[in-house]
Amino acid sequence: MSLKYLDNARKILCIGRNYAAHIKELNNAKPQQPFFFLKPSSSILKPNAGPFLVPKGVVVHHEVELAFTLNRDLKNLPESFSPEEALASIEGYALTIDMTARNVQDEAKKKGLPWSIGKGFDTFLPVSNFIAKEKIPDPYNVELILKVNGEVRQQDKTDLMLFPIHKILSHMSSIMTLEKGDLILTGTPKGVGQISPGDKIEAYLKYNDEIIEEIKLDAEQKPGPYEYKET
Amino acid sequence: MSLKYLDNARKILCIGRNYAAHIKELNNAKPQQPFFFLKPSSSILKPNAGPFLVPKGVVVHHEVELAFTLNRDLKNLPESFSPEEALASIEGYALTIDMTARNVQDEAKKKGLPWSIGKGFDTFLPVSNFIAKEKIPDPYNVELILKVNGEVRQQDKTDLMLFPIHKILSHMSSIMTLEKGDLILTGTPKGVGQISPGDKIEAYLKYNDEIIEEIKLDAEQKPGPYEYKET
Ligand SMILES: [Mg+2]
Ligand SMILES: [Mg+2]
Ligand SMILES: [Mg+2]
Repeated sequence: MSLKYLDNARKILCIGRNYAAHIKELNNAKPQQPFFFLKPSSSILKPNAGPFLVPKGVVVHHEVELAFTLNRDLKNLPESFSPEEALASIEGYALTIDMTARNVQDEAKKKGLPWSIGKGFDTFLPVSNFIAKEKIPDPYNVELILKVNGEVRQQDKTDLMLFPIHKILSHMSSIMTLEKGDLILTGTPKGVGQISPGDKIEAYLKYNDEIIEEIKLDAEQKPGPYEYKET
Repeated sequence: MSLKYLDNARKILCIGRNYAAHIKELNNAKPQQPFFFLKPSSSILKPNAGPFLVPKGVVVHHEVELAFTLNRDLKNLPESFSPEEALASIEGYALTIDMTARNVQDEAKKKGLPWSIGKGFDTFLPVSNFIAKEKIPDPYNVELILKVNGEVRQQDKTDLMLFPIHKILSHMSSIMTLEKGDLILTGTPKGVGQISPGDKIEAYLKYNDEIIEEIKLDAEQKPGPYEYKET
């Protein structure tokens, strides 16, 4: 039951650049409106489903993020869509890591290519168990923590989000119909950094200083023929 | 039954720049290896499911494409994956139009942003009925035709593809697991151009001069609050 939410997701949508300090650390421009990209369902790494896989020649960065799922379809929402209506549309939450092949993405950004490869390798979306909505009364009071080999790399509260959930939903829904079960990632705070084969990754979602969910992973080298080359 | 293939698709993957004359007409660089992007399932427009919707302020281009679905999972295929093995992995075919918000995509390319919005609006993936594999013994002998208001805009054979299907599959599968049912678009030939509200769109897939499938659509303005603004 606690992983069924993953099978119900027709789409996985990820907001980019939603924390000011993260925008700064990557020297990116601050968007005037939310932008987003898709991750494939094949990138999901469920709890206890094996290691996180680092593709050969790829610089992988961790991006710890709060995600939520929808309990209804949303389409063409007005800009006046309210925080209360947004919360009423949420089925529940998850702790996620938006793993990113940074050198693949940097090449894509330079050459104007899509992000789908850099964001979409197998195991590039580690997720926690489903978090019942009641456990997170206020999604802006969540603390996200990511450690590599015991060292804290990311630790911030979700109150730093630039575009709140109701603005994300009204914008996304005006472009594509959001469907019941869709999984939406809300962006990463500062502190993204590299993961190498052999690393131990831990992520925690805390509410009122209590750990609600966690992810624990070992990183290994991805098997198979893939090796990064320029497109 | 002839539309069930659309409900079985966990992913929709689209190859970019797979016809030399189309690369030239958009002044793009020729890729050294296939690259691809995702379209959301919510962008599918089934036959007789209503008009194609042009978002306000958006320059939409038609890209007629041959698509196929998989009859098995494919993962980490070697570069030696053969044309015969590729054909054996195909469940069947479809005629599709990869509708593209060209001004949204051009901005994304300039700013290094993802393509998901420009490729992902509702109705941006018109599809035909399922085409049984037996009807297309050779996928490189297909003729694709697209007309707007009766005028031929695109008309080319699939033998002009730069990366053949076995190369597409081995490359994609080394990055992300391809799943039974996934829908894969193989790229558009030259002749892409604008569609405006009021236009009548027809597309045809021919084999040995016989029409195997067709798409017929009216274009209308997309309702709702969306209007193109810079990100
Ligand atoms: Mg992210
Ligand atoms: Mg993209
Ligand atoms: Mg295309």
